[in-house]
Amino acid sequence: MRRRQSVIPSEGWIDVSVRLRSGMVHWPGDPDVKIERILKMERGDHCNVSTISMSSHTGTHVDAPYHFIENGDGIHDMAFTSMIGQARVIEIENQHCIKPEELKPNKIRKGERVLFKTINSKRCWNTETFVEDFVYLSTESIEYLVEKRVKTIGVDYLSVGGYIKNIDEVHKSLLGAGIWIIEGLNLSRVSQGNYDLICLPLNIINGDGAPARAILRPI
Amino acid sequence: MRRRQSVIPSEGWIDVSVRLRSGMVHWPGDPDVKIERILKMERGDHCNVSTISMSSHTGTHVDAPYHFIENGDGIHDMAFTSMIGQARVIEIENQHCIKPEELKPNKIRKGERVLFKTINSKRCWNTETFVEDFVYLSTESIEYLVEKRVKTIGVDYLSVGGYIKNIDEVHKSLLGAGIWIIEGLNLSRVSQGNYDLICLPLNIINGDGAPARAILRPI
Repeated sequence: MRRRQSVIPSEGWIDVSVRLRSGMVHWPGDPDVKIERILKMERGDHCNVSTISMSSHTGTHVDAPYHFIENGDGIHDMAFTSMIGQARVIEIENQHCIKPEELKPNKIRKGERVLFKTINSKRCWNTETFVEDFVYLSTESIEYLVEKRVKTIGVDYLSVGGYIKNIDEVHKSLLGAGIWIIEGLNLSRVSQGNYDLICLPLNIINGDGAPARAILRPI
Repeated sequence: MRRRQSVIPSEGWIDVSVRLRSGMVHWPGDPDVKIERILKMERGDHCNVSTISMSSHTGTHVDAPYHFIENGDGIHDMAFTSMIGQARVIEIENQHCIKPEELKPNKIRKGERVLFKTINSKRCWNTETFVEDFVYLSTESIEYLVEKRVKTIGVDYLSVGGYIKNIDEVHKSLLGAGIWIIEGLNLSRVSQGNYDLICLPLNIINGDGAPARAILRPI
């Protein structure tokens, strides 16, 4: 017999998405974010309507395999199971790089969704200037996570890899291994522990990535 | 004591969002949807990256009170409880207009999230041309839903009100009553019944609305 009541809690969710606005920080070379009202009630229009223009990799977003793999899956191919369910926030102390030494004591298991909270969450989202020396995952850490066969990883700035460092190789490793990537989280309001995660990217056909909303709830 | 396991099911979710692509249908007067790759691996770029340009009221989206109410809440003010939790899909037979006569037998209760499945879901999303005579909610139905104090309503085309009919008055009634609106659902894959709903709009500061991803799971 089917259950008749929802098991989805409506309350207690914490937003871990970055707010979108014109002029916000973005990856160097990507177009500026523009959110502009084209209908304005204060001007006599019957309602307010805006247009949005941004890169698919700005703010909180999901990378699809197609981002770095020719003929890879597009964002619309993502199974919801990658982004919905139990997740673990792991706090990282190293202020430069996430290294395997810091990951190993956490005993990361196959199929986990792991979100790394670094100094980025506090440091990088309060400026409109791109922060080049954000904390990133070392290539060795990525190899470790691929070997552990995690389901999804999340990071708290605009790339899993470091700026002008290991971007290409770590994206190819993760995406090639079928591990989905959430980038651009703001984890400043959560601490280490277990959470329910819901992260839903926009449903873009064949998208290389998509802006997403991501929320957590302590368990 | 806290529970240690997630209660959020990872499987069984049905996508009720419209897929986004260049050239897709939009409200008359809104700008065209453009999703264009600015980096292309087949051209020798190191990865694929796209830009997105669209109205905040295209495809599956959420209307904020600010859409029709000066100084109304923006999309970032939305409480998740409006869009996460139990919801009911109600199938509508009338192919022109949703009228109170068809709503009343459903005994809609205070606090419900109700999604109306009409012929729109099958008829309107398979064309790039805007369908002017989509099924909409009559002003009397909106008054009925406001009186019932539902929490959220969802419709399966681009407006709760009819084209060149009652758009302004029904938006003002609903949004003024604190009822959140999901527009642009594609409910063709679900039938009447109870579901878990998750609908997450992009987190746009002071947004009059925002593109969203919406999913359902039968309960």
